[in-house]
Amino acid sequence: MKQVLAVVKPHLAEPVIEALLRAPVEALTVREVRGYGRQKDYLNQYGETEYALAFLPKLEIEVWVDDSRLQEVLELIQQTASTGRLGDGKIMVLPVKAFHPLG
Amino acid sequence: MKQVLAVVKPHLAEPVIEALLRAPVEALTVREVRGYGRQKDYLNQYGETEYALAFLPKLEIEVWVDDSRLQEVLELIQQTASTGRLGDGKIMVLPVKAFHPLG
Amino acid sequence: MKQVLAVVKPHLAEPVIEALLRAPVEALTVREVRGYGRQKDYLNQYGETEYALAFLPKLEIEVWVDDSRLQEVLELIQQTASTGRLGDGKIMVLPVKAFHPLG
Repeated sequence: MKQVLAVVKPHLAEPVIEALLRAPVEALTVREVRGYGRQKDYLNQYGETEYALAFLPKLEIEVWVDDSRLQEVLELIQQTASTGRLGDGKIMVLPVKAFHPLG
Repeated sequence: MKQVLAVVKPHLAEPVIEALLRAPVEALTVREVRGYGRQKDYLNQYGETEYALAFLPKLEIEVWVDDSRLQEVLELIQQTASTGRLGDGKIMVLPVKAFHPLG
Repeated sequence: MKQVLAVVKPHLAEPVIEALLRAPVEALTVREVRGYGRQKDYLNQYGETEYALAFLPKLEIEVWVDDSRLQEVLELIQQTASTGRLGDGKIMVLPVKAFHPLG
């Protein structure tokens, strides 16, 4: 089992979530975050001469997936959340020790 | 040390948090998330013929606990957050490399 | 690569984020959380005789950093987010299996 965190542009979250639910994944939660990055020129679109804590709203998708489906899930996110422009976001994969459904 | 993430129904979060603080745990934070799952029939209670990105509001409880108390903490969450119905949520356990209190 | 989670007092988040972006880190997101702790006396500043689910608003900073910069990042957070008072927060470090930029 792995935890996959995908930080994506908000308007691209819906197709990513739809694709992941069809994959399928064990669990999927979504939360709003503020994303800060090193794309200073891109972020400084409003004319600031310094970075000055500019940020972009993002959605962080947290997915719990069996190892056997990890590669498929990573490819789905890459295909669905990438526009080829700066600020598309990131995917991170963390190891999971245990997973228990409640109920 | 382990990170325990529990995605629970909002109305059950309060007893879970009370139980965890008595356990006790090293740190506990709570955030609102949107939970998506594979319980399509359950989620389609409003008559949709497709899943269509239905989601349920959940609270995600993030707990930091010593290995010696992990089993106790998992049992507390199971006992307090389970209703036996679909959509009760999940518990995940992740390894932690280091934990430092600030201050 | 490591995931560093720092739970800090909201008014100290801005200098922490500024310092981390200069470090630099691979990615940085911020989300609002409710922090619960074991500092019962401190939290009970309003005169409650019981803890009773009192909580403090916190910001959780999620940073993705190369192993070679981990120590620098931890020291930056310690220096910037610590006031020496109870409730300053925590830093946790989790292992990361993979990191992929989108786009």
